[in-house]
Amino acid sequence: MIRTLYRPKAGPFRTDLQPGEFAAALQDADGLLWVDFSGTPPDEDAPILLDTFGFHPLAVDDALQEAHVPKVDDWGQYLYIALHAVVFDKDAQDGEHVDTHELDIFLGKRYLVTHHDEPIAAVDRVWTNCQRDERHLTAGADHLLYELADGLVADYMSVVDEMDDAIDRIEDEVFAKPTSDTLARIFQLKRSVLHLRRIISPQREVLNKLARDDYPVIDARDRVYFRDVYDHLVRLYDINESLRDLVGGALDTYLSVINNRMNDIMRTLTVITTLFMPISFAAGFFGMNFFQPIENPLKVWTSNPVFILALVVMFLTPVGMYLWIRRRGWV
Amino acid sequence: MIRTLYRPKAGPFRTDLQPGEFAAALQDADGLLWVDFSGTPPDEDAPILLDTFGFHPLAVDDALQEAHVPKVDDWGQYLYIALHAVVFDKDAQDGEHVDTHELDIFLGKRYLVTHHDEPIAAVDRVWTNCQRDERHLTAGADHLLYELADGLVADYMSVVDEMDDAIDRIEDEVFAKPTSDTLARIFQLKRSVLHLRRIISPQREVLNKLARDDYPVIDARDRVYFRDVYDHLVRLYDINESLRDLVGGALDTYLSVINNRMNDIMRTLTVITTLFMPISFAAGFFGMNFFQPIENPLKVWTSNPVFILALVVMFLTPVGMYLWIRRRGWV
Amino acid sequence: MIRTLYRPKAGPFRTDLQPGEFAAALQDADGLLWVDFSGTPPDEDAPILLDTFGFHPLAVDDALQEAHVPKVDDWGQYLYIALHAVVFDKDAQDGEHVDTHELDIFLGKRYLVTHHDEPIAAVDRVWTNCQRDERHLTAGADHLLYELADGLVADYMSVVDEMDDAIDRIEDEVFAKPTSDTLARIFQLKRSVLHLRRIISPQREVLNKLARDDYPVIDARDRVYFRDVYDHLVRLYDINESLRDLVGGALDTYLSVINNRMNDIMRTLTVITTLFMPISFAAGFFGMNFFQPIENPLKVWTSNPVFILALVVMFLTPVGMYLWIRRRGWV
Amino acid sequence: MIRTLYRPKAGPFRTDLQPGEFAAALQDADGLLWVDFSGTPPDEDAPILLDTFGFHPLAVDDALQEAHVPKVDDWGQYLYIALHAVVFDKDAQDGEHVDTHELDIFLGKRYLVTHHDEPIAAVDRVWTNCQRDERHLTAGADHLLYELADGLVADYMSVVDEMDDAIDRIEDEVFAKPTSDTLARIFQLKRSVLHLRRIISPQREVLNKLARDDYPVIDARDRVYFRDVYDHLVRLYDINESLRDLVGGALDTYLSVINNRMNDIMRTLTVITTLFMPISFAAGFFGMNFFQPIENPLKVWTSNPVFILALVVMFLTPVGMYLWIRRRGWV
Amino acid sequence: MIRTLYRPKAGPFRTDLQPGEFAAALQDADGLLWVDFSGTPPDEDAPILLDTFGFHPLAVDDALQEAHVPKVDDWGQYLYIALHAVVFDKDAQDGEHVDTHELDIFLGKRYLVTHHDEPIAAVDRVWTNCQRDERHLTAGADHLLYELADGLVADYMSVVDEMDDAIDRIEDEVFAKPTSDTLARIFQLKRSVLHLRRIISPQREVLNKLARDDYPVIDARDRVYFRDVYDHLVRLYDINESLRDLVGGALDTYLSVINNRMNDIMRTLTVITTLFMPISFAAGFFGMNFFQPIENPLKVWTSNPVFILALVVMFLTPVGMYLWIRRRGWV
Repeated sequence: MIRTLYRPKAGPFRTDLQPGEFAAALQDADGLLWVDFSGTPPDEDAPILLDTFGFHPLAVDDALQEAHVPKVDDWGQYLYIALHAVVFDKDAQDGEHVDTHELDIFLGKRYLVTHHDEPIAAVDRVWTNCQRDERHLTAGADHLLYELADGLVADYMSVVDEMDDAIDRIEDEVFAKPTSDTLARIFQLKRSVLHLRRIISPQREVLNKLARDDYPVIDARDRVYFRDVYDHLVRLYDINESLRDLVGGALDTYLSVINNRMNDIMRTLTVITTLFMPISFAAGFFGMNFFQPIENPLKVWTSNPVFILALVVMFLTPVGMYLWIRRRGWV
Repeated sequence: MIRTLYRPKAGPFRTDLQPGEFAAALQDADGLLWVDFSGTPPDEDAPILLDTFGFHPLAVDDALQEAHVPKVDDWGQYLYIALHAVVFDKDAQDGEHVDTHELDIFLGKRYLVTHHDEPIAAVDRVWTNCQRDERHLTAGADHLLYELADGLVADYMSVVDEMDDAIDRIEDEVFAKPTSDTLARIFQLKRSVLHLRRIISPQREVLNKLARDDYPVIDARDRVYFRDVYDHLVRLYDINESLRDLVGGALDTYLSVINNRMNDIMRTLTVITTLFMPISFAAGFFGMNFFQPIENPLKVWTSNPVFILALVVMFLTPVGMYLWIRRRGWV
Repeated sequence: MIRTLYRPKAGPFRTDLQPGEFAAALQDADGLLWVDFSGTPPDEDAPILLDTFGFHPLAVDDALQEAHVPKVDDWGQYLYIALHAVVFDKDAQDGEHVDTHELDIFLGKRYLVTHHDEPIAAVDRVWTNCQRDERHLTAGADHLLYELADGLVADYMSVVDEMDDAIDRIEDEVFAKPTSDTLARIFQLKRSVLHLRRIISPQREVLNKLARDDYPVIDARDRVYFRDVYDHLVRLYDINESLRDLVGGALDTYLSVINNRMNDIMRTLTVITTLFMPISFAAGFFGMNFFQPIENPLKVWTSNPVFILALVVMFLTPVGMYLWIRRRGWV
Repeated sequence: MIRTLYRPKAGPFRTDLQPGEFAAALQDADGLLWVDFSGTPPDEDAPILLDTFGFHPLAVDDALQEAHVPKVDDWGQYLYIALHAVVFDKDAQDGEHVDTHELDIFLGKRYLVTHHDEPIAAVDRVWTNCQRDERHLTAGADHLLYELADGLVADYMSVVDEMDDAIDRIEDEVFAKPTSDTLARIFQLKRSVLHLRRIISPQREVLNKLARDDYPVIDARDRVYFRDVYDHLVRLYDINESLRDLVGGALDTYLSVINNRMNDIMRTLTVITTLFMPISFAAGFFGMNFFQPIENPLKVWTSNPVFILALVVMFLTPVGMYLWIRRRGWV
Repeated sequence: MIRTLYRPKAGPFRTDLQPGEFAAALQDADGLLWVDFSGTPPDEDAPILLDTFGFHPLAVDDALQEAHVPKVDDWGQYLYIALHAVVFDKDAQDGEHVDTHELDIFLGKRYLVTHHDEPIAAVDRVWTNCQRDERHLTAGADHLLYELADGLVADYMSVVDEMDDAIDRIEDEVFAKPTSDTLARIFQLKRSVLHLRRIISPQREVLNKLARDDYPVIDARDRVYFRDVYDHLVRLYDINESLRDLVGGALDTYLSVINNRMNDIMRTLTVITTLFMPISFAAGFFGMNFFQPIENPLKVWTSNPVFILALVVMFLTPVGMYLWIRRRGWV
């Protein structure tokens, strides 16, 4: 789907521009044009980007291939910027995880071209705001870019908060009832945190460049806004690092708790064995055929006093063992 | 609560300035004004900060949202500085842990504006000193900032000392009687240390900038004081790193001690099994029905000499096993 | 094998140039010569490289020894560039692993010399393209270099994708049925990822230099193409780092799963022992010869009521043990 | 204790200068004064440092508080330098460990002021040398500083050597007879190494600054001496890093050796159980009351041939088990 | 032993120069002198180095003490360079390990002084080459230095190859038959790799400086040769890092394999216990004295049908257990 927002220098605000009219709109030195390509096939986009807008083939190539880390390229008349939107899929079959969708942006002095394969919530929000209130378009194309970047980062913030909650839930689970599924979820979260890290870090660099460097298509007075988004990304990166520590801690806890349980299990096994093995031997001893009742000189071994003695031994041995075990702190 | 300290160029020291009088006070080129917003609602603060003081909306936004890593922004006429105060909550339900509260500061040539949601001990101490002794105000707004920063860092120092003690107590506990609760407390401390690290490190950078860079609102001769606070933060960071090592060491010790105990338990199990299994078999052997007393050619197997022999075997086997075990160093 | 492609200023395109004709071709200021040494013995290459092309002995030495990390050396009239092609050997006897082959390139203003010991797919592809369509040669020697670099990097991309799949398969295997062979394959993959990392990182630097620095033999307008390859390498490095994390995660998972299984096994052992040891003792107890049927005052111990009682004990003990175990969460 | 060395421009060498005479000595443009404060109370030192020498309050504060990482502050007329001396306490109750004592130095053009709370061997050695041979004082105050730094570093070297020996002893112990005490000592050593690291690293930076930067109180020709001390510190840091690796290796070895022992223990348990459980069952089988001698159709089960068979089974089962175990490499 | 090579401006090549003749040789502006001190006592070397050559006392001190990391000091008229030769001792009593010997070099415009305590193979090779072919001396002192450095690095390469082989052998051993000795050898190799790393890294820096910086005693045209040695060291460092990864991998494999074996052992123990404990109880049950043949109402419990039933139970219980165990994947 290709949709357009066009505020001409003179005349009414339009949302129904056709691709054939782009060239004329770009000539309007005081107008502002926003074209959004959403999930359109490459062979439909490419001619518009290459011919109508005149972008460099390499830049168009970067935009149409959905596989880039965030970056900003200065092509003089326009900037090519790749950012990533984030989605936290809580109900995915393979556990809650984080997905990112690439958002490619061409920023010119009087136009903004956005391209994405999947719908992106932040883009839709800014789009709706622009339709509702025309003034969003009067601040210029670079301010629109700021609103997009700000919207993307706000989504990151809520994703990171949800991940924080997920880690808290897992930590409680680890101490309460650690299962193999807990382990799988810890690793899933670890992967999400690492994934976010790899995205936030270059995205931060992009905003840093926008805030610091001198680009012809960005008004110097607007840089302070990019600086603000940059600060949010710095904080995000920071929180994400702390999530990494927490996930790592959860894994360590898991292993320690499993170790503790193993210890418990082995202790029980050892206690049971220690208590019963000696007296089982005693019982077996008196079950030997040496002590048959008939004409046996050893008959005295099965007399009543010996029985009393055996009972006493069978009672005292486990008691002694138990006391010894207790002194070692095993029960 | 909004409170003010005002030392006008001429006339008496005042603490009862109303927000409406701020504008006039700011005109006084030789006066000094300190306004402290403590836990006031954002919609009460915002107009004063935006309109009366004329701070940039982005800076005010940063101040009102309690979610920033320490930083310093130079807005020309004033500096926006975010610092963090520290609190060590020893009696929290979920274990002793460290909390930090954000302190936002606007530093102008003749005024200081502080904003915080929670009461901060260091701010109150400096406030009280200023009220008690007017001279604290004569050294200028930047010197007030130094006193605040110095107070905050002093609190860090005592928190770090308390954490050091907590680690010492845990280390003793690990060697003496490690429990699952010990483990939880080690992880809680680890988290506190990591939290402090993330706060101290950018805070150190803020002070470094204040000590090194040329800001119009900071007197060049006062930079040496910020350098002093910076040195304290370098040392703090250092100590915190060593706490991190110690906590990591405590965890390693915990796991090693648990491992040692498991070893002990298994050794006991093995010794008991090794001693009793062979003689239990011997007892079972002579309990077989082959050796019935009646008309049995195998009757000789239950004769007295054999009994003596069996007794000897039953005595010597465990002794031999014990000696073998002993040679392997297991008992 | 030495093969040549020669597009002279005037006259037809030639592929049959003999080494003796190189000198003349190099004099042709508007021609373009590509010589490819593929697996030729050093003593055949050396004289051509040293005498005909006049390369520095150290550069020729670097080219003939197959043992260099990627690098670029500026020798003024020409660049010496070492790159690596990648091959993923899935059917190797010692498990799937990654191999790299060195590709040495001398880039002059009007010629390109490539040298490799093993056949390299990317070189052959570019060669075929050049033969099929002469225009590949008209863009200049530096554009040929770009096509070679782009081809090499495309191969990396597919190798990295295959490794990604291999890791996915191993992860499923780890959770399903971890064996000693799984472990060996995890380590093999880890080694491949580390190997790639050591190659991609300097290769990225080489492309960065080609894109950024001013070399006499590279047209400034062509640098943007090397920048594009550089961006692909940045992304590759990034993906490779995430593979590293995933392999590390797979190893951690493996150990955790093994640990979980050990826990399971020990729990079973303990449950069985706990259930049967006490009642085995009980059975042994009543097997003692004290309770012989003949003229024995203890005869009452083997009467029917006692039997009922013993049966009850033998039934209730394991039930009680089971309930206790269940409360501890072991079954 | 305050002690002084004074070599006036003219007249005899003096060691009995009183604090009241310092001011006069400082006026002597060609004399050299060394004042050493050793464990004196702060309220005794402060006035001399502040008033007589005129040091900045912040610098004096740094000197009197014993809690700084090594650093150098340039106050123009003088340098404030904090270094650390090292002591290896081999007989401490809580294991051999490393202590460091702070040495604060004020270096002026014609004077050296040293301040320390604990006696420091290197200071005493240099002091004695100066008393014995006046020429040590003629080379200037900066050369005295060099001698002090050199002496401190020499002490580090011997401490590091002793720690190296301690690690060697522990390594032998780990392979021979690892105990819980070994573990505690490994962690103690690890702590010492980390402590040294935190001290050596900034100390190295201090010497680097002295060797590299241009300070008015240090003769440019003497910088080469500080460079020499710097080189020693580089090497020290290096050796310390290798000690860190060795201690880490000792801990890994400890855990591996413990793991090996556990393996041994479990193997023995399994072998004993595997050998005796089957034949114990066989013995129990023939102990059942089915095979009573009196009027029993099953009497044949207890006949002599069956006995022989049972004996054979009882002999062959363990032999078979043993062979199977042996093939698996457990014995 | 002190040996000399002297190529005077005029006259024959000499190898018999006496220390007394050095001073004269140094005056010869077009000659070239190489003096090699091999294991000579310091008090013999020092006067020659200090007085005849006039080296700075600190530089001579560095040369005579065998305890420096590689470095280069520029003393204006000459360079002091410390390099390390490497030896791989395969037959050492405490396992194969790497040793390094310091080689101290003074490089002047017309002379080279080398000093080492142990014989160094690379020095001897270059020496022999010079004796055999005088032209090695005509290229200047800096070219001799290049030949020495190149020779040292070539030795590193072969040592690293031998270590690579050693790691391969150990890896095979780990999977085949891991013993306590394997562990000790892994740690020995780890130490060697770490040792090499600490030497190669500064050595690389030395060569980088020689290749890059402007030294009066090094001909600018010869820098390209040092660049070549530098490239080899870069590659060496790289390979060494990969050895470090491989050794770390071998240790991880070792622990995993040991863990797997432990798992195996415990599984066997559990299987044996699970199979035999229930039927041992059954046998014990029927061995109780309740079922005496004489005048016993319970006599029916020992009748033939019950015996058949008991046999069936004794056969089916282990079969059922086995099937359950099998379903869990333990056999």
